[in-house]
Amino acid sequence: MSQIEFQLINDYFRHDSLAFARDGIELGIGDDAAVISVPEKKSLCMSMDVLVEGIHFPANADPFLIGQRCLAVNISDLAAMAAEPLCFTLGIALPRADRDWLEKFRDGLALVARRYNCPLVGGDTVAGSGTIAIQVQGLTRRGRSVTRAGARPGDVIYVTGTLGNGALALAAQEIEVQFDSAFAPRIELLSETDLAYLNTRFYSPEPRVEFALNACHLLHSAIDVSDGLAGDLAHILEASECGAIIEADLLPYAPALRRAASPAECLAAALYGGDDYELCVTVAEESAPELETIAAGLSLQLTRIGEINSSHKLLLRQDTGKLEPVRHRSYSHFQA
Amino acid sequence: MSQIEFQLINDYFRHDSLAFARDGIELGIGDDAAVISVPEKKSLCMSMDVLVEGIHFPANADPFLIGQRCLAVNISDLAAMAAEPLCFTLGIALPRADRDWLEKFRDGLALVARRYNCPLVGGDTVAGSGTIAIQVQGLTRRGRSVTRAGARPGDVIYVTGTLGNGALALAAQEIEVQFDSAFAPRIELLSETDLAYLNTRFYSPEPRVEFALNACHLLHSAIDVSDGLAGDLAHILEASECGAIIEADLLPYAPALRRAASPAECLAAALYGGDDYELCVTVAEESAPELETIAAGLSLQLTRIGEINSSHKLLLRQDTGKLEPVRHRSYSHFQA
Repeated sequence: MSQIEFQLINDYFRHDSLAFARDGIELGIGDDAAVISVPEKKSLCMSMDVLVEGIHFPANADPFLIGQRCLAVNISDLAAMAAEPLCFTLGIALPRADRDWLEKFRDGLALVARRYNCPLVGGDTVAGSGTIAIQVQGLTRRGRSVTRAGARPGDVIYVTGTLGNGALALAAQEIEVQFDSAFAPRIELLSETDLAYLNTRFYSPEPRVEFALNACHLLHSAIDVSDGLAGDLAHILEASECGAIIEADLLPYAPALRRAASPAECLAAALYGGDDYELCVTVAEESAPELETIAAGLSLQLTRIGEINSSHKLLLRQDTGKLEPVRHRSYSHFQA
Repeated sequence: MSQIEFQLINDYFRHDSLAFARDGIELGIGDDAAVISVPEKKSLCMSMDVLVEGIHFPANADPFLIGQRCLAVNISDLAAMAAEPLCFTLGIALPRADRDWLEKFRDGLALVARRYNCPLVGGDTVAGSGTIAIQVQGLTRRGRSVTRAGARPGDVIYVTGTLGNGALALAAQEIEVQFDSAFAPRIELLSETDLAYLNTRFYSPEPRVEFALNACHLLHSAIDVSDGLAGDLAHILEASECGAIIEADLLPYAPALRRAASPAECLAAALYGGDDYELCVTVAEESAPELETIAAGLSLQLTRIGEINSSHKLLLRQDTGKLEPVRHRSYSHFQA
């Protein structure tokens, strides 16, 4: 497959479903660079993720689902900054120019792009082994972005949705999950509905953009749960120079996970599993009621799971009341 | 090599030499996203390139030189928009976390980043096969970026520097150059100085940022010569809906190329070789003297090579006076 054909594929991504017009896009795909304008009172956020076939998604996965997932997990990083998605760029190295694969992949990207009004504005397609780099751009309040560094002692810690689904979804796909704690869920106990739910959570995560935009004036800090709550919360604690206690019996699990896994396994999946793409945020105690009202208004599950303190330690209160340190696993992806 | 170690490598790029502070960077590397501010009268340009080991650079090349080249070729895209470099992001998939390789690669990036005041602000490092995605961001005059689409009949066509060096540099590295025209330069005729010159041109191309910024008020259209003059000029003609005649005897070649190649081979290297990272620009006839004065002030070679017309054809006037159509090769990368 020559580079010339890949150049044609580059043009192929220049499709109305994906590279659509949007306010703020002065010049989209097709020149030496894209050009965007940033409103006066806004700043621009940008985040890049690289996903490798066989590591971040199974090599034989449906290309439509890969497209959905690749863009959604990037937009989740924007949600963690309370940024409104603006546009994205796509760099892709492919072993062959398989038009059927590319069309499905493009359609998966396009579905998420439309949902979040985040068109493709540029990129590069080359011959190589399956590697996908996506950079998302988003708009945030100028000089007032929500970062990992703003948590303060006394803040309440919340998470959206439920945790541990990423780990269970991988196990259900018979992909080995790499984290030290024992995790051998009984997949045979899951219903078809459970399996469909897990597949949706894994391949079509819902970046919590709307919640973050509505709540941004309350948030002291935020991160998305991509690597497991333990590692991601540890990033907040490190950046904010504080500590936290989280309550084991408050962590929210989906019914599917409760059915297939022991309580200890549920906890391990939430702390170390990752791939959940929920938000973990901290707010002042007095902001808690308003935050809960915002989530309720969006029909979004929001759970108070613990509190920030000045200890520089991340501790877990077990159901028994016993406090124990949580290992900081900052990254624990899986391998096929 | 686990993902955890790659996460450590991610942190390793967070080095003062590379991720330095700069006006406009509100939040650099290390959060869910970087945050930048764009001045009121500016727009933001962004361009992503993906480079694959063994295709875009030899697998055994010096990592310092790879780092230099990767960032410089991206900044060349900003020069083609007359944009001032602002910052870049780096996505990298690597088969192993080789610290010696990474340190040299980082130092090569850092040299170019400092020269163009373009710090690293984010990215992602994962396990995979050698693939490098770089996105550069730059600032341009709001709503007045220089694109490929502004050429007008009567415009004069100029190129900076000399052409064909990319193709000769590849041949000197014994990398097969893929373009149809015969190109078998006699490398044995090149001096050590010639070889050093070619190596520098290939691994340390000089994006023509300063020229573009000084000349942006004159430029009707611009592109950087990355794929060969024929293909790149064809992009301008297509976007601008016009044609051009270029004069074979005006094309500028470096002495090294003249020494090693026949006149026909020099022409083929310029038209189809690519990897030159010079600028091809068009300006109104009356702007030509001012453009030449700007280049002279920067001690930059600038050569008038032809003229835009309304024909929708790209023609070459041979030394004999004969006009012939130029094949439009839009992309012609090499393979090891």
